[in-house]
Amino acid sequence: MHLLSFRRPGATTPSWGAATVPPAGVSADDPGALAAVAVVDATRAGRSYPADVATLLELAVAERDEVLADLAALQGKESDLTVGDVELLAPIPRPRRNVFAVGANYRGHVEESEHSSGPPASPIFFTKATTTVTGPGAVAVDPALTTRVDWEVELAVVLGAGGRHLSPEQAADAVFGYTTANDLSARDQQHGRPEGQWFLGKSLDGFCPLGPWLVTRDEVPDPRDLRLTLTVNGAVKQDSTTADMVFDVPALIAELSRFVTLCPGDVLLTGTPSGVGDARTPPEYLAPGDQVVAYVDRIGPLLTTIVAANGR
Amino acid sequence: MHLLSFRRPGATTPSWGAATVPPAGVSADDPGALAAVAVVDATRAGRSYPADVATLLELAVAERDEVLADLAALQGKESDLTVGDVELLAPIPRPRRNVFAVGANYRGHVEESEHSSGPPASPIFFTKATTTVTGPGAVAVDPALTTRVDWEVELAVVLGAGGRHLSPEQAADAVFGYTTANDLSARDQQHGRPEGQWFLGKSLDGFCPLGPWLVTRDEVPDPRDLRLTLTVNGAVKQDSTTADMVFDVPALIAELSRFVTLCPGDVLLTGTPSGVGDARTPPEYLAPGDQVVAYVDRIGPLLTTIVAANGR
Repeated sequence: MHLLSFRRPGATTPSWGAATVPPAGVSADDPGALAAVAVVDATRAGRSYPADVATLLELAVAERDEVLADLAALQGKESDLTVGDVELLAPIPRPRRNVFAVGANYRGHVEESEHSSGPPASPIFFTKATTTVTGPGAVAVDPALTTRVDWEVELAVVLGAGGRHLSPEQAADAVFGYTTANDLSARDQQHGRPEGQWFLGKSLDGFCPLGPWLVTRDEVPDPRDLRLTLTVNGAVKQDSTTADMVFDVPALIAELSRFVTLCPGDVLLTGTPSGVGDARTPPEYLAPGDQVVAYVDRIGPLLTTIVAANGR
Repeated sequence: MHLLSFRRPGATTPSWGAATVPPAGVSADDPGALAAVAVVDATRAGRSYPADVATLLELAVAERDEVLADLAALQGKESDLTVGDVELLAPIPRPRRNVFAVGANYRGHVEESEHSSGPPASPIFFTKATTTVTGPGAVAVDPALTTRVDWEVELAVVLGAGGRHLSPEQAADAVFGYTTANDLSARDQQHGRPEGQWFLGKSLDGFCPLGPWLVTRDEVPDPRDLRLTLTVNGAVKQDSTTADMVFDVPALIAELSRFVTLCPGDVLLTGTPSGVGDARTPPEYLAPGDQVVAYVDRIGPLLTTIVAANGR
């Protein structure tokens, strides 16, 4: 199932629902196919559904499954709304806490990074502020704050169960689904500040585009073999597979849960493959007008347009 | 005003309200005085108050002020409940996102730290997971995960207004109040993991005790001159003043707001003075049974007892 959050034109509160994605999926280079996808609006379905996807994930599993089965039954019957009619939001527009993220988790990216001496012995966790989360669309960049904005396509995991001290098997079961992420980074701030904490340079407003939807785990049989690509203005910059991960999804979740009690609705970015702008010769960064498409197989394309911050 | 969150014996949901603190305050070494403080329970006051302190802070200012004036009028009339009757929780038991925190922000602490070459040129921000937040009381430590738990008394700031690109003056006005924090750290995890991200080593469950209450800004005329102390089993380990900060409270908030849109209810720890265990010769760490009292003048004492993690 494909769950999405969106805003109808003129609406003050967001809606959420299910997208009826064709069996072949939606490719990275066909915006028209994305716009044509039919949407069932859960908030108009006339039942007492939870108000948003985060609340859905906090329901007891039986109750959650009932809502999802109900929504699935509505798909195909209601076809009066498409993605093209609405503004797509991040599947979870405002997580209940910071997005968890992992650095240096693809062998290819470790190799292209200057400061590295081989894959890390344990995952490198950091967080991105909740205000980084945005849907497909524009991200405003203030040139007074950064002139080195970089891209990072990533597989994002959304948890459907929580807990602490999860085994890798329990961690795999805790996954509710996946979405495509672009872990945008202000490299000048990430690397230029004392003590090298990555938080601030990766926490500018809008620096965590997520979307176009949240794909449930059953639609992604093997998260260890998903192709990821990223293009800038149509030119391929990243093209790899999750098989290149140093720590796979269950290993990341299990390790994090040794320290932190995890919660349904938690979002975890799992690292980026090789091909980031900062590691290129010469380095490349994003500028206003650039169109970035991050894509993960079986999930879909996430389009981000860089714009100049208003009036700054 | 002193706002606090607490749980009545046997209650399933937390309450919040106002504490009637004597004019002299509550000292660091008089648990009896803390227990005797009268409490007005906002959730039983018979009015349509917000459900918790985080929700209070998200009200429009006029509406919030009305609730606070109403609560103030009840203080002195209702005296059937004291702090000793309840379990104190963190003033905001579960923030809406990770706690913001700052490293190396006291000159004395910078000097005692090995890796430093003088005060940082800009604040070092990181975050602590929401699940670190706890009230006064026990913190469970798993010796399989860390054997180097360290203390850090800090002035914690709670925002009453948000925004981006705040000037220092706007930042000072955005402060709603203050509480005492203990930024507990697993030094082996903080310093022993690759790429030196502090997040995980400072994000173990319960590693951010806050309390005993949230003191509104009007009761703290000058946050640049507050004494902070910390004792372990009665022995003084930290004794300094916020005058030793590298970046003061408005400067920290203003700098953070260049990157992140701030929100009412955001919690910011402002750094620790000298005297941490890791910088001592020989180093000292906390062990089960240790009693830690963090204290900030005009705010109050925050008692934490270290216990062994259950069954591990």
